[in-house]
Amino acid sequence: MSSNKTVIAVDAMGGDLGPSVVVPGAIEAARQTGAKILLVGNEATLDGELNRLSPSGVDLEIVHAPEVAGMDEKPSDILRRKKNASIQVACRLVRDGAAQGVVSAGHSGASVACGMFIMGRIPGVERPALASLLPTEKEPVVLLDVGATVDCKPYNIFQFGLMGDAFARDILNKESPRVGLLSIGEEEGKGNSQVKEAYELFKMAQNLNFSGNIEGRDLFTGEMDVAVCDGFVGNVALKLSEGLGLSLSRVLKRELLNSGFLPKLGSLLAKSAFRRFAKVVDYAEYGGAPLLGLQNISIVCHGRSNAKAICNATRMATLFVEKETNKRLMETICANEELTRFGRSC
Amino acid sequence: MSSNKTVIAVDAMGGDLGPSVVVPGAIEAARQTGAKILLVGNEATLDGELNRLSPSGVDLEIVHAPEVAGMDEKPSDILRRKKNASIQVACRLVRDGAAQGVVSAGHSGASVACGMFIMGRIPGVERPALASLLPTEKEPVVLLDVGATVDCKPYNIFQFGLMGDAFARDILNKESPRVGLLSIGEEEGKGNSQVKEAYELFKMAQNLNFSGNIEGRDLFTGEMDVAVCDGFVGNVALKLSEGLGLSLSRVLKRELLNSGFLPKLGSLLAKSAFRRFAKVVDYAEYGGAPLLGLQNISIVCHGRSNAKAICNATRMATLFVEKETNKRLMETICANEELTRFGRSC
Repeated sequence: MSSNKTVIAVDAMGGDLGPSVVVPGAIEAARQTGAKILLVGNEATLDGELNRLSPSGVDLEIVHAPEVAGMDEKPSDILRRKKNASIQVACRLVRDGAAQGVVSAGHSGASVACGMFIMGRIPGVERPALASLLPTEKEPVVLLDVGATVDCKPYNIFQFGLMGDAFARDILNKESPRVGLLSIGEEEGKGNSQVKEAYELFKMAQNLNFSGNIEGRDLFTGEMDVAVCDGFVGNVALKLSEGLGLSLSRVLKRELLNSGFLPKLGSLLAKSAFRRFAKVVDYAEYGGAPLLGLQNISIVCHGRSNAKAICNATRMATLFVEKETNKRLMETICANEELTRFGRSC
Repeated sequence: MSSNKTVIAVDAMGGDLGPSVVVPGAIEAARQTGAKILLVGNEATLDGELNRLSPSGVDLEIVHAPEVAGMDEKPSDILRRKKNASIQVACRLVRDGAAQGVVSAGHSGASVACGMFIMGRIPGVERPALASLLPTEKEPVVLLDVGATVDCKPYNIFQFGLMGDAFARDILNKESPRVGLLSIGEEEGKGNSQVKEAYELFKMAQNLNFSGNIEGRDLFTGEMDVAVCDGFVGNVALKLSEGLGLSLSRVLKRELLNSGFLPKLGSLLAKSAFRRFAKVVDYAEYGGAPLLGLQNISIVCHGRSNAKAICNATRMATLFVEKETNKRLMETICANEELTRFGRSC
């Protein structure tokens, strides 16, 4: 194993579909990126998957982890009591330097908790943020936080904006990402007290293209590169978008089927439209949500992830490591340290 | 004028399209309900509209109000300095007993502020809530608060749920409305601290069919009758739904136009699908958002309201008055008074 090869630990037991999609996704990512993949999970199961797929020319290794984080368990319980759960083992591999990033489609809360408490935060970052890539009419927008920190202070939101900016610059190749603060009106002074205070910090931020408040209706037009909000609001927004997309496509399908108007042709057309709709809720496209603010990167994938999603998430983790995005992230956090401290004192 | 006839004061100057849509909408509502409508606004302009339309068999009266609330003015400034703005005059008519409800498509913030400070709150209701009717795959859901109270305490959210319940029973004819608390996970204990505390109150509520937490993705399936949240979250959710609906329909339109596949037939089908989509963002269907918790009803309409929306909002106001929905609302607020007081003391 070359010492400067990127190594990503993939929680092979996570997700609704488990190893049967995670393993092929990870293999494809290893092929595309040249990174080494540590498949973390039950050895016998993973051996079986590898035998079935018999991949060649890729750098893979199984790391045995006999336990799995149950979807109905509390993150704190998993952290305390399931030391051998695949997500914990994966995070420890990163903490101990055997890997530089984690990918998991398992219990999101456990991924966040294990990332935060095992891999650790970047000094100066008070709370981590989960960033989700949402499709828009133009380029995707980074929405954060979507659930890592649900009780936020204004300076937490401020730091989320800084981290989203670093991510958009490195991973989305935006030169000067437009950062909008999700609120209930575009004018300065609109919002709840939390958002109004965050606005004051953003206004004074160093090296940030702050574009002011944005409203929910502006999220999908593609005018922003980064939309920042507290983790409760972001999680509601993310799931609501997913739900509305699904409901609309079901209504549309019903409507076209009921139209009785050349049904076959209608269904052909519908299929094409559905492909576009599906993209709105297609996690596979972007892979997963990076958990920002940790010493190393962790990508939290949707439970329903398919092999393509796992592959894309693993590619994102590799890119994050190889571009040294955390360096950039730390720079912007440092440049705005005094401002954050000021926010904390308010 | 019969003394027990319902009288609704309609802010005839409000909305992007002004009297040209508000007046015909109000006339149609007067025709359908038999209520008396006070058209509040510039007398000369409204006289002109009435002459143009020359309605017969309806009970209409113009009440002169020489000023209009500007969309760029602060609600507090409108309240203090524009005593003769149409929305203020309309609310004073209700306060003084000349009308029992207000309808306006003007400045939403001004409608809320004037409603709250001129018409006054129901004793025991700490903060009003704006309730929006959202379409779902089945029956519409009442989402509240969507922006009247953006800095909420848990017991405010609790009271919003009680008020939403009363509204759904009377106006939507639901026998035992299912009330869900908008959160980031279905299980008890999921949410931010505000929502977790509100959950505790809801669990102990009198005469309420509390269905626990719901996630954003459940909002549009139609499993709930009432979805309750703080005014910031609700406003973001509402505008996000509107924005996503519009963006999706634009993407679909572009896709169908670009498909080159029997474009004419495609466009016919698309039109039909669009009609369904449009409904998601069709304020006209439900008219407007009732501002609940005030001594009398105020319906806040979207700025882009057309005549149908004004008509439906005015019908809703009439129904609210005639069904004495505020009586029911006060009953449930009273039945849960001690619980609210307990929440306030936490």
